[in-house]
Amino acid sequence: MPNFSQTVQHIRSSEIRDLMKLATRSDIISFAGGMPNNDLFPVAEIEELFLKMDPEKKKTAFQYGPTPGYPPLLEALKEYLRTKGLPVDTHKLMITTGSMQAINILGMEFINPGDLVMTETPSFIGGIAVFKTFQARIKSIPLEADGIDLEALETVLEKETPKILYVIPNFHNPAGIIYSKEKRLKLLELLKDKNIILLEDDAYNELYFNNEAKAMTTPIMALNKTDVEVVYTGSFSKILGPGFRLGWMLASPEIYEKAQIIKQGIDSCSPNFTQVLAHEFMQKGYLEPYLHKIRQEYHERRDLMQAALKKYMPQEVQWQVPQGGFYFWLKLPEGMDAKEIVKDSIIKGAVFVTGKTFDPQAENLNYMRLAYSNMDKNQIDEGVKIIAESVKKYMRVYS
Amino acid sequence: MPNFSQTVQHIRSSEIRDLMKLATRSDIISFAGGMPNNDLFPVAEIEELFLKMDPEKKKTAFQYGPTPGYPPLLEALKEYLRTKGLPVDTHKLMITTGSMQAINILGMEFINPGDLVMTETPSFIGGIAVFKTFQARIKSIPLEADGIDLEALETVLEKETPKILYVIPNFHNPAGIIYSKEKRLKLLELLKDKNIILLEDDAYNELYFNNEAKAMTTPIMALNKTDVEVVYTGSFSKILGPGFRLGWMLASPEIYEKAQIIKQGIDSCSPNFTQVLAHEFMQKGYLEPYLHKIRQEYHERRDLMQAALKKYMPQEVQWQVPQGGFYFWLKLPEGMDAKEIVKDSIIKGAVFVTGKTFDPQAENLNYMRLAYSNMDKNQIDEGVKIIAESVKKYMRVYS
Repeated sequence: MPNFSQTVQHIRSSEIRDLMKLATRSDIISFAGGMPNNDLFPVAEIEELFLKMDPEKKKTAFQYGPTPGYPPLLEALKEYLRTKGLPVDTHKLMITTGSMQAINILGMEFINPGDLVMTETPSFIGGIAVFKTFQARIKSIPLEADGIDLEALETVLEKETPKILYVIPNFHNPAGIIYSKEKRLKLLELLKDKNIILLEDDAYNELYFNNEAKAMTTPIMALNKTDVEVVYTGSFSKILGPGFRLGWMLASPEIYEKAQIIKQGIDSCSPNFTQVLAHEFMQKGYLEPYLHKIRQEYHERRDLMQAALKKYMPQEVQWQVPQGGFYFWLKLPEGMDAKEIVKDSIIKGAVFVTGKTFDPQAENLNYMRLAYSNMDKNQIDEGVKIIAESVKKYMRVYS
Repeated sequence: MPNFSQTVQHIRSSEIRDLMKLATRSDIISFAGGMPNNDLFPVAEIEELFLKMDPEKKKTAFQYGPTPGYPPLLEALKEYLRTKGLPVDTHKLMITTGSMQAINILGMEFINPGDLVMTETPSFIGGIAVFKTFQARIKSIPLEADGIDLEALETVLEKETPKILYVIPNFHNPAGIIYSKEKRLKLLELLKDKNIILLEDDAYNELYFNNEAKAMTTPIMALNKTDVEVVYTGSFSKILGPGFRLGWMLASPEIYEKAQIIKQGIDSCSPNFTQVLAHEFMQKGYLEPYLHKIRQEYHERRDLMQAALKKYMPQEVQWQVPQGGFYFWLKLPEGMDAKEIVKDSIIKGAVFVTGKTFDPQAENLNYMRLAYSNMDKNQIDEGVKIIAESVKKYMRVYS
């Protein structure tokens, strides 16, 4: 069970870590880790590309590279992002050591202790962790089915101006939702003439399950006709492998210039070894067929998961069916605490992450995140059954 | 000339960068970049190891890993560091994204704006850059032939207590010197009972050219019988390839615990892809023969460089012959400015880095760093000749 310790790492919650220690069984079914499936990585393709690679390029892979990234990869990525309507000619692109480093760099550039940063709730734990590291004051705005609650946001913005507003519009981690186009445009309108950086985290952009969802994935930055300062981040983690530690940041020249200097002081450059491989992967046309394959695979898992949830979960549990990405976000009846459920289900052999973990205010007690990405398809039904039984048991006890 | 842009990146001096732009000739001989030789990387070995690797391990390479590092690599590295007398049982080891990230993490952990950090002068520009990023107040102590000037250090320590003292005891970048054992012990004695972190950067430990130098490379941390808090950093950059972006930090459990949390917020984990390969490289016994080979190669370059310097440089120019590492550190007569020399030599086809770049106070005008690591052996004589001619021309003009 080599993924178990990784799962623990990526939950980033000491509470859950303690629970995990209780589970010594190696056959635990984990809906916990928000990571790609180990069996879906393009191992054979990368091996083939590495073998066929030009010897000079191989040497380059071992050497230092320029701080903003391996130039051919920057070029390939620029053309790729252009197809998404992103402003690659007026803005500057930088390769980062995972997209989390991009968030970190932006934090170093803009956040002083006590500064206000706004996030969605729930939000990505890695993002929350960065903002907390820089001692930001975090206010969070609830998510609705089609994106951030604009009225709640407007109410706060009437009184306060955050340095950064951090959003994940596509196949949200953990909420699984996608922003409607209307809401993207209204959000830009709302931020107009305000001195707020909109940090758009688009790690799941490619993982749509149908054409309708695909049409909705156009980044907010690509829709921006206002003066809003959008910083866009993306990642190779979900479309190639997190082990490459490669992400990117697209930002205005002003933000980019400082970001580059900061990155130089953090790690000098991102790994050239994996940058060279990522470039081969894009350049030789392997990305698109690979995406086609993993979209189907995650789509199948989503379907199996939805079927199992419908079969086993009591009707009081609510969720939206995700149209892409890795996550189901389940709402338990008010007053219930998902922690009690995971305590029970982990003993029976299934684990997930409680909603509280994804809430900057550590509330949201009655939510659960179930990731279907990194598990065998044949485990899904059994795993959901276990968790549903824990839910029912809890409901019997506390009702 | 694929290394030119990289060289420019690694000089990190806008002044030199501007000079570089003047040099449009592609046949420039560069003594500037402090990086390993492109032609010496173990490309064939890594390719072979990757092909033979266990399929499950290959999948692991694509996935997230634990924040402190890929466990088998941590184990292998621990055994390796044990052979150097380092306290791997009482202290904790963490893999970092290059050793520069380790310095950066320590900066985040300990430096508040205005805090005093002490360095050697000259010192590694990457280290200086990190301390400046965290707005440290930097005081630097001159280096002597056998290490830091202890009297000058003692004088400062009588008045002030820095948070960190940053030293590079082995085959110093840029000064090329190695600390004597006596000076290492006296330094520990001097820091005893003072609340100062000794940050020991040992990136060049393995690159000794003879047994006498080898015997001197024992890390200060390994000699520490006092209560001095030593944090030890090392790197795969010089013993495998900088493109792997892998370094490490060995620190007390207290420092390690916070460092781990900080690293989680910076990039979550270092690249598993290159960690898995680095582990294979160590595990399968490839490291020692590779080190044997590169020591010989750099030794030969050192000899060619020393011969050329003796042949061409006027007697007013002084230097120590490095017993390991990558660098000659040349002292020009007082009052001379190395910038004038590089301006001239770059037009004639040879470039190096001026000493000022390595001085936190940006003084040291009459020094030059000549790296012999990343060039063809047959370029050394010609390159040194060009620079020596520029020195002589300058001496004629200004004397």
